[in-house]
Amino acid sequence: KWSERKVTIFTPMSDQQETGPTMRRLSQLESVVLWNRARQIKRELKQGVKKPYREVIDISWGDPQGGGIKPLSFVRQVLAACHYPQLLNSDKLPEDVRQRAERLLKECAGRSTGSYTATQGIPYIVKGISEFITRRDGGVPSFPNNIYISSGSQWSLQVPTSLILIISSFFFTGVLTPVPCYDKVNMSIRELGGVTIPYYLHEDQGWELQIEELNRALESAKGVCNPVALYVMNPGNPTGSLPQRRSSFSWLMSEFVSYKKVLAEMGPPISETVELASFHSASKGLIGECGLRGGYVELVNVDPAVMEYIYKLFSTDSCASVPGQIALNLMTHPPQPGDPSYSLYNEVIMTITQLMRVFEVLNSVPGFSCQPVEGGGFAFPRLHLPLNAIHKAKEAGMQPDEFYCVRLLEESGLLVNPGWNFEQKEGTSHFRMNIMIKEETLEGVLRRLVSFHTKFMKEFS
Amino acid sequence: KWSERKVTIFTPMSDQQETGPTMRRLSQLESVVLWNRARQIKRELKQGVKKPYREVIDISWGDPQGGGIKPLSFVRQVLAACHYPQLLNSDKLPEDVRQRAERLLKECAGRSTGSYTATQGIPYIVKGISEFITRRDGGVPSFPNNIYISSGSQWSLQVPTSLILIISSFFFTGVLTPVPCYDKVNMSIRELGGVTIPYYLHEDQGWELQIEELNRALESAKGVCNPVALYVMNPGNPTGSLPQRRSSFSWLMSEFVSYKKVLAEMGPPISETVELASFHSASKGLIGECGLRGGYVELVNVDPAVMEYIYKLFSTDSCASVPGQIALNLMTHPPQPGDPSYSLYNEVIMTITQLMRVFEVLNSVPGFSCQPVEGGGFAFPRLHLPLNAIHKAKEAGMQPDEFYCVRLLEESGLLVNPGWNFEQKEGTSHFRMNIMIKEETLEGVLRRLVSFHTKFMKEFS
Repeated sequence: KWSERKVTIFTPMSDQQETGPTMRRLSQLESVVLWNRARQIKRELKQGVKKPYREVIDISWGDPQGGGIKPLSFVRQVLAACHYPQLLNSDKLPEDVRQRAERLLKECAGRSTGSYTATQGIPYIVKGISEFITRRDGGVPSFPNNIYISSGSQWSLQVPTSLILIISSFFFTGVLTPVPCYDKVNMSIRELGGVTIPYYLHEDQGWELQIEELNRALESAKGVCNPVALYVMNPGNPTGSLPQRRSSFSWLMSEFVSYKKVLAEMGPPISETVELASFHSASKGLIGECGLRGGYVELVNVDPAVMEYIYKLFSTDSCASVPGQIALNLMTHPPQPGDPSYSLYNEVIMTITQLMRVFEVLNSVPGFSCQPVEGGGFAFPRLHLPLNAIHKAKEAGMQPDEFYCVRLLEESGLLVNPGWNFEQKEGTSHFRMNIMIKEETLEGVLRRLVSFHTKFMKEFS
Repeated sequence: KWSERKVTIFTPMSDQQETGPTMRRLSQLESVVLWNRARQIKRELKQGVKKPYREVIDISWGDPQGGGIKPLSFVRQVLAACHYPQLLNSDKLPEDVRQRAERLLKECAGRSTGSYTATQGIPYIVKGISEFITRRDGGVPSFPNNIYISSGSQWSLQVPTSLILIISSFFFTGVLTPVPCYDKVNMSIRELGGVTIPYYLHEDQGWELQIEELNRALESAKGVCNPVALYVMNPGNPTGSLPQRRSSFSWLMSEFVSYKKVLAEMGPPISETVELASFHSASKGLIGECGLRGGYVELVNVDPAVMEYIYKLFSTDSCASVPGQIALNLMTHPPQPGDPSYSLYNEVIMTITQLMRVFEVLNSVPGFSCQPVEGGGFAFPRLHLPLNAIHKAKEAGMQPDEFYCVRLLEESGLLVNPGWNFEQKEGTSHFRMNIMIKEETLEGVLRRLVSFHTKFMKEFS
């Protein structure tokens, strides 16, 4: 009943950071020290311990609402009405809110957000997403059957990944991932048994992805694993950079370019054969609803037999959270001009001036340099640390930027995310900071940062 | 940098139902025919096609709200207020609703349900769950550090499973799973590369789990895989049965017995060494909030190093949906006597009379037999089909109970779930029906069922 076959397993012998393919079952945990200390400091402040600051500002995450940004009223009113439809009878809610909630409830089994949905998501919402994508890409068609809603794009990311890994079965399967990169991407691929092959983004060129570097990375995988997929982030996390079209080099506030649109424009055979899995989530952009957990993936050029298998993988979970699905509908179909909720929805959360301000400040202080932030909610400044500081960090058993961040937290109450967590280029130091925060808070953040930094550089120079 | 080792891989040579260990990468999909036909019939009814019924009643899922049961007002009011805190200023919401929403918002970063939470869940809610478990088990302590909230218990089930499979690395790892069993359990284990070892519940003894049968199953795994875990459902799905303590054989309306409590009462060394992962979710019980996606797992006697690894596995997803987490809080801490929402919360959704009624009807009609339903929301009656019907099914390329269910749908508009999907004992036929539905609907369901069944039995006898 069972057939036997012999295979060869490769296992990595060291657990160090590599420039070549990396397979680690047990990923390094983020610098626990830093976040543990932050929790401790918060407790101490509560207990009345005197510090040079009254509260810890945590900008180590990309969590706009956690950072004090108010959720969009339209989104919250629709959610409240969907959960508790008695609210539909009150005229306290704007007309378009009530209409939208009515429409969405009509699509829920038993008119309730408490019912399971289809595996792909509520068909009406899935169809709306495909319309949104078609609009975004200037008419390049998107088909509802290729779209899956999940509880956040993190979850759905695991499906094609595990698929890739299963298809290539007993070989080691490689995925090209950028450096620096949001750590959970590498973690997910490795936990699922895959190998990550780092390619380095070119910091001095605004974190650009370069063909030569991709070739080097591919070369490095030879004899170790079988590279089958390329992972790109758009905009980059932590870098906040947007991919450039070869023709356009106007960096600041570049236009969002959809990879799917580019693929379509390349024409056959490429446009009809290259497989693409494209992720988006309600945690991103102006809506920033991280806690509701709603994301989707669109799959392009995937073989029908594989699509059937993907359906099965998604059905191992019941369905995505209905509040998350509703958030996706509101994100892809915001109020239109003339709707009662239009003006409130379009209050600009973060002004371009605010972005420019961060860029300006971080480039005017010695020891900092920062590539322009073009999208997303993060800045990823580089730290040019004195040798003394680097030695001190080594003595303390920390990475240089981790050491810097621990001191920053300790002395100024500012919590940022060390670049080390994003697998940056060996010998460089950075940190990631969430800049999607209230304008008043941002000013305070920049003040604390510059004042600490100046002191720190003086101490170690 | 890489070390090589040779291992032997076993792969199953057939994809048929087995009584021994089963490893299938591509699980059989549920009887698609049936659900496709149901969709079609719904469309036809909309288009005005004449049928002997006006609408399809879908009781193939365990989805109380999809089945017309109203959500609990307390739950929905708290959710609405948490999403849209302006509602807290209105006196239209009961005092305890506003207090609870206030309390929960205080625990959300930025006082918003749109913020990420800690990996384990919001600490206040996690702590509340541990208190609930301690209360449920009559004082057997439960520790917050052992609890993880996830987007439904389906998701969290995958974590210990993948853990088990990873730990046992390149061996085939077996998990003992009951027959019949909710299909997604086997599917998840197999998708993750594990082997399921079926053990049969004893139908005539009220679907009891028998030691001798467990021993037989273990024996069957020898030389094929390494059995490391036992999966039990309490109450059973689809069977609706509760595990019996050896001493008590009073079947009907048995008391819920927690496996964790039993483990604790067994005393050392067993109580201190046997590892237990216990799952629960807000989709279950009276609250029945399937669409919000909130579940948790409690881990008992797991090695601290492994707990650290579990933390990492959970952190590959950002966090569970906040609405789902709130639902867990409301489920584990319902309104108390004296609270304004108490009486409304405790309106009994499904009366015991209703349960008895299903049991009575299904046992009074020839060709049906049904074990008592003791918990959960399902009945799983057995079909004693005439040989002619079994032959006819084979001709149509269907399993006997699938054939029965397709005809039931076609002729009476009733959609139930064929037992075949639950990997029942070879040669038996069943179906699962959701009985957590409105009383009026249930009467209609029983009428349609008995009338079709009588006709069907006559046709084939």
